[in-house]
Amino acid sequence: MKENKKRKIILDCDPGHDDAIAILLAAGNPTIELVGITTVAGNAEVEKTTNNALKVCEIAGIYDIPVLKGSGQPLVRKRETAPDIHGDSGMDGPVLPEPTRTVEEEHAVDFIIRKLMESDGDITLVPTGPLTNIAMAMRREPAILSKIKEIVIMGGGTFGNWTPAAEFNIYVDAEAAKVVYESGVPITMMGLDLTHQALATEEVSERIAAIENPAAKFVSDLLVFFRKTYLEVFGFEHPPVHDVCCVAYCIDPSVVEAKKLRVDVETKGELTYGMTLVDVHGVTGLEPNVNVAMKLDHAKFWDMVIEALNSYTKVYSEK
Amino acid sequence: MKENKKRKIILDCDPGHDDAIAILLAAGNPTIELVGITTVAGNAEVEKTTNNALKVCEIAGIYDIPVLKGSGQPLVRKRETAPDIHGDSGMDGPVLPEPTRTVEEEHAVDFIIRKLMESDGDITLVPTGPLTNIAMAMRREPAILSKIKEIVIMGGGTFGNWTPAAEFNIYVDAEAAKVVYESGVPITMMGLDLTHQALATEEVSERIAAIENPAAKFVSDLLVFFRKTYLEVFGFEHPPVHDVCCVAYCIDPSVVEAKKLRVDVETKGELTYGMTLVDVHGVTGLEPNVNVAMKLDHAKFWDMVIEALNSYTKVYSEK
Amino acid sequence: MKENKKRKIILDCDPGHDDAIAILLAAGNPTIELVGITTVAGNAEVEKTTNNALKVCEIAGIYDIPVLKGSGQPLVRKRETAPDIHGDSGMDGPVLPEPTRTVEEEHAVDFIIRKLMESDGDITLVPTGPLTNIAMAMRREPAILSKIKEIVIMGGGTFGNWTPAAEFNIYVDAEAAKVVYESGVPITMMGLDLTHQALATEEVSERIAAIENPAAKFVSDLLVFFRKTYLEVFGFEHPPVHDVCCVAYCIDPSVVEAKKLRVDVETKGELTYGMTLVDVHGVTGLEPNVNVAMKLDHAKFWDMVIEALNSYTKVYSEK
Amino acid sequence: MKENKKRKIILDCDPGHDDAIAILLAAGNPTIELVGITTVAGNAEVEKTTNNALKVCEIAGIYDIPVLKGSGQPLVRKRETAPDIHGDSGMDGPVLPEPTRTVEEEHAVDFIIRKLMESDGDITLVPTGPLTNIAMAMRREPAILSKIKEIVIMGGGTFGNWTPAAEFNIYVDAEAAKVVYESGVPITMMGLDLTHQALATEEVSERIAAIENPAAKFVSDLLVFFRKTYLEVFGFEHPPVHDVCCVAYCIDPSVVEAKKLRVDVETKGELTYGMTLVDVHGVTGLEPNVNVAMKLDHAKFWDMVIEALNSYTKVYSEK
Repeated sequence: MKENKKRKIILDCDPGHDDAIAILLAAGNPTIELVGITTVAGNAEVEKTTNNALKVCEIAGIYDIPVLKGSGQPLVRKRETAPDIHGDSGMDGPVLPEPTRTVEEEHAVDFIIRKLMESDGDITLVPTGPLTNIAMAMRREPAILSKIKEIVIMGGGTFGNWTPAAEFNIYVDAEAAKVVYESGVPITMMGLDLTHQALATEEVSERIAAIENPAAKFVSDLLVFFRKTYLEVFGFEHPPVHDVCCVAYCIDPSVVEAKKLRVDVETKGELTYGMTLVDVHGVTGLEPNVNVAMKLDHAKFWDMVIEALNSYTKVYSEK
Repeated sequence: MKENKKRKIILDCDPGHDDAIAILLAAGNPTIELVGITTVAGNAEVEKTTNNALKVCEIAGIYDIPVLKGSGQPLVRKRETAPDIHGDSGMDGPVLPEPTRTVEEEHAVDFIIRKLMESDGDITLVPTGPLTNIAMAMRREPAILSKIKEIVIMGGGTFGNWTPAAEFNIYVDAEAAKVVYESGVPITMMGLDLTHQALATEEVSERIAAIENPAAKFVSDLLVFFRKTYLEVFGFEHPPVHDVCCVAYCIDPSVVEAKKLRVDVETKGELTYGMTLVDVHGVTGLEPNVNVAMKLDHAKFWDMVIEALNSYTKVYSEK
Repeated sequence: MKENKKRKIILDCDPGHDDAIAILLAAGNPTIELVGITTVAGNAEVEKTTNNALKVCEIAGIYDIPVLKGSGQPLVRKRETAPDIHGDSGMDGPVLPEPTRTVEEEHAVDFIIRKLMESDGDITLVPTGPLTNIAMAMRREPAILSKIKEIVIMGGGTFGNWTPAAEFNIYVDAEAAKVVYESGVPITMMGLDLTHQALATEEVSERIAAIENPAAKFVSDLLVFFRKTYLEVFGFEHPPVHDVCCVAYCIDPSVVEAKKLRVDVETKGELTYGMTLVDVHGVTGLEPNVNVAMKLDHAKFWDMVIEALNSYTKVYSEK
Repeated sequence: MKENKKRKIILDCDPGHDDAIAILLAAGNPTIELVGITTVAGNAEVEKTTNNALKVCEIAGIYDIPVLKGSGQPLVRKRETAPDIHGDSGMDGPVLPEPTRTVEEEHAVDFIIRKLMESDGDITLVPTGPLTNIAMAMRREPAILSKIKEIVIMGGGTFGNWTPAAEFNIYVDAEAAKVVYESGVPITMMGLDLTHQALATEEVSERIAAIENPAAKFVSDLLVFFRKTYLEVFGFEHPPVHDVCCVAYCIDPSVVEAKKLRVDVETKGELTYGMTLVDVHGVTGLEPNVNVAMKLDHAKFWDMVIEALNSYTKVYSEK
């Protein structure tokens, strides 16, 4: 099979430090066609995550990919954000100029529906924030279900980070997650089991710091802030760049080892709201519905990121 | 106060026997401006409730009011319908011709948002089915919240009919109901406490049977079927035409006595999912958020309905 | 059928204003054999409800019926009491001397088990507080299940008083209630639907005030306090003496009209914890398990109470 | 520190393959004073687990330690057992003679209360089955709370085995577990994180097979069966002898590395009932309440077990 066709993705994100790097990897890798960047409330309010997405595009010279603002509130619950981890802006640390480009008129949910309905079924959705936009699109236009090639989610895991049971993205909108996980669409899940392997070690940070372009400089600054909050809040030596794993998987699925397992979402529990139940030992007897990534090829992963960041040098030198 | 301005309403329904009569009352009363009829899955699948809405319009000669198809599935849960009560078609009993007119292209949720955003804040939403469309619209465009004049809901009560705790419309999509009841928009609620007073007694049935036009004949046939299922399933002597209460209230609020109370929706319970908790004695200490209708003026109510049904005689004689 | 055998009951209570009257009715009626008075935490802590039980016995000259202290805490939850309704002592209002008699050594749960196991299956349990002791006994010695003649419970209803959904006794220990309602033992339930008919009207209060003995004087004083809190907290004109209904029913079942219905207890809900789901219209399809009292013969009821209170005049005059 | 005083424990168990080995370790180690063996429904019905406990005592020549039958049903829920893992008898595999000795008259819960109340606060409870007996004792006599030296629980973990979220012992009676974990008593927890390290490897099995006494022969046979079910049900190469860890810890706490963490029990979830939430990263902000064992010294652990099994050779040779 000739693989000269690019993989089309819509990146649905809430930048967010790791979301920002995910954007840069997606836009900087030649095998990915980034159809659009849609935003959602998550790490911060949607006005902030949208502005952050625009800023990332600006610093990296990404002017041809549409950015669309999405849902500002979860499907059912009240909004919850993560200023402890991402700062008040949702992307604290680097000082960036205000973006010159603006968001599209179209709503993110409408964009996702339209692009899918116009497609040949070759678009992959890559949600790296709460699943609100994706669930809203599924309910608004059920016909998209058969049009989605795959959903590559950052969310959940066999353990939590926001509560002992729940990972932040799923916790923030567990009802949306339930809709998506029960949709029947092919899902690959980058849960904490996987993303906690995507650590920005010092060696990685040094390699990034050595790249001389504004996008790489920006990532360096992001990692300084992210390293600090992950140490303070979770006691991690190195920060995990969760969201980047989704894009890396789209570029080359072999960057992870995954296993088809049953995954369900708890929406009723008193202490477990937003937990993803990953049936590792098959005790539920339910049909596997999710391709769960379990092991990351750390070297290959960071090589991809570094290569993408290097690509922005050319962009800038061409200006 | 001069009252020559009509009250604008969007009737969001799932016909449904009583929904059908609600449409006829709204379209047949001169003080109501029926902006549109939107449909939702509830008593039956949305394809059926939409077709039923079109049929009702056809039989009554309603050609100038747009009908728009809405959500086919609840916000989060799997769909549940009520064939025991409304038959397989959702409106069994009368034999009606297939409608000649068709549904609009626009989605019900988009229509609701557009009409509200274009308005001066003078549109009342009248949902007589599950609250899926209204909740979807609120989440898709939060700016509508300040544009809605009032929401007059058929749903809930201090007791249930679908389960011992829950009324059907709320049960079918309790997550949507939670979104709507917590929205801060002025709500008037026609719960079972009220609607079980809206009984189509034999005297009422006879008055309707005496009206000679196809719309009234259709209503007569509806009531025959509805009387039968309400007797079989609930042991009721006379069937209650729940949804009609909402429209009657919009025409003349004095048709009910209501009380401002706190109402919340249970979405977690094992046996109580979809219950509306009406805080009759103020024991929660929470601020009242809903105008709860408790007592119906039965005579005034049916006079309104009969008057509206009579109006269709003129329509037909004009044809 | 010769009815010269007395009906044996164990009164498991948390006095409590209405519990106190229930004790006086049980001890003052010649057809009841009061095997024992067991106490439980409910309206107040168990030390207080036990002391109150002793005080009631003292004022009424009841020295031959054992009083046994029971559970101080619900089966699973943290304890909750009702000082707003019953005052800090659990029986505020009347000023009573400290009791001279004391509680038995045996624990209430052990007493209930022992008496049942020694019996011919002719003992009725009459819990008028939370169901903790009964559930504990059932789990400690399952063999009692076939020995219990009937359980006559004050608790639950189709509506609540402690929350919009839940009645106080069930709310305080819903897990215990679940154990009891699912036990398979014959249950008659005096829920709020019934007990809110057992109102101490002014005419009733006057009749009691006219009885000249300390027990009746004590009841008069109880009703003054109870009337005040029921007006303040619930807006009731006359206070309902819930618990007394259970004893009245044991004396003469015809004092109520009851219906066999399915009743289940919610233990999971966010807003509905402790609700009894009474399936009035049979919509669950589950087998009826509870005899639900719905209508009280108000005149017969109060005649019984007055007659019992009069009996204490003899006691005192004999002293 | 002089350590000539033995550590007093009550072993509350549901034999059960690993419970059987736990009994043998406790009775065979000279530093442990086994005050009593109490039984509970868990791996099998309580009649079976009690009979199994007696059989274990018989085969090992343990005649001086009382065996007491306890709770046959969880605090609130219906009973659930584990025949897939332990066979129908609860201890399938070895063929053992019927026991000659019998169970005591006293109920396990009464025994636990009595022994604690008579003690100087030097008794450790070692529950290796569902926590029903312990919770029942705590509710029946709250004064025991200050008398318990420590509770060493086999149960829970950061992941499940009976469901994706819940470990069997906690799942079977999560309400009892909630009572115990919230009791304020010092708790050490041997969850699956720890017990899945207590694997009976082939090397271990061979060492046990080399011991020539009936107790060791019995353990060998147990492991053959347990190995088989663990492979079939969970895909484990070697079976983990969960319960034995608790006794090993009582003998020498240094056999594990543990960490003080917050642990709570979910009793409401739809998919997560019976999960223990272990707050590894301190995200709840709640005070640590449990000493959670995380790492086992595998060599030291099995040396203890082997040594205890060897001690039975002397017993038999003395006969």
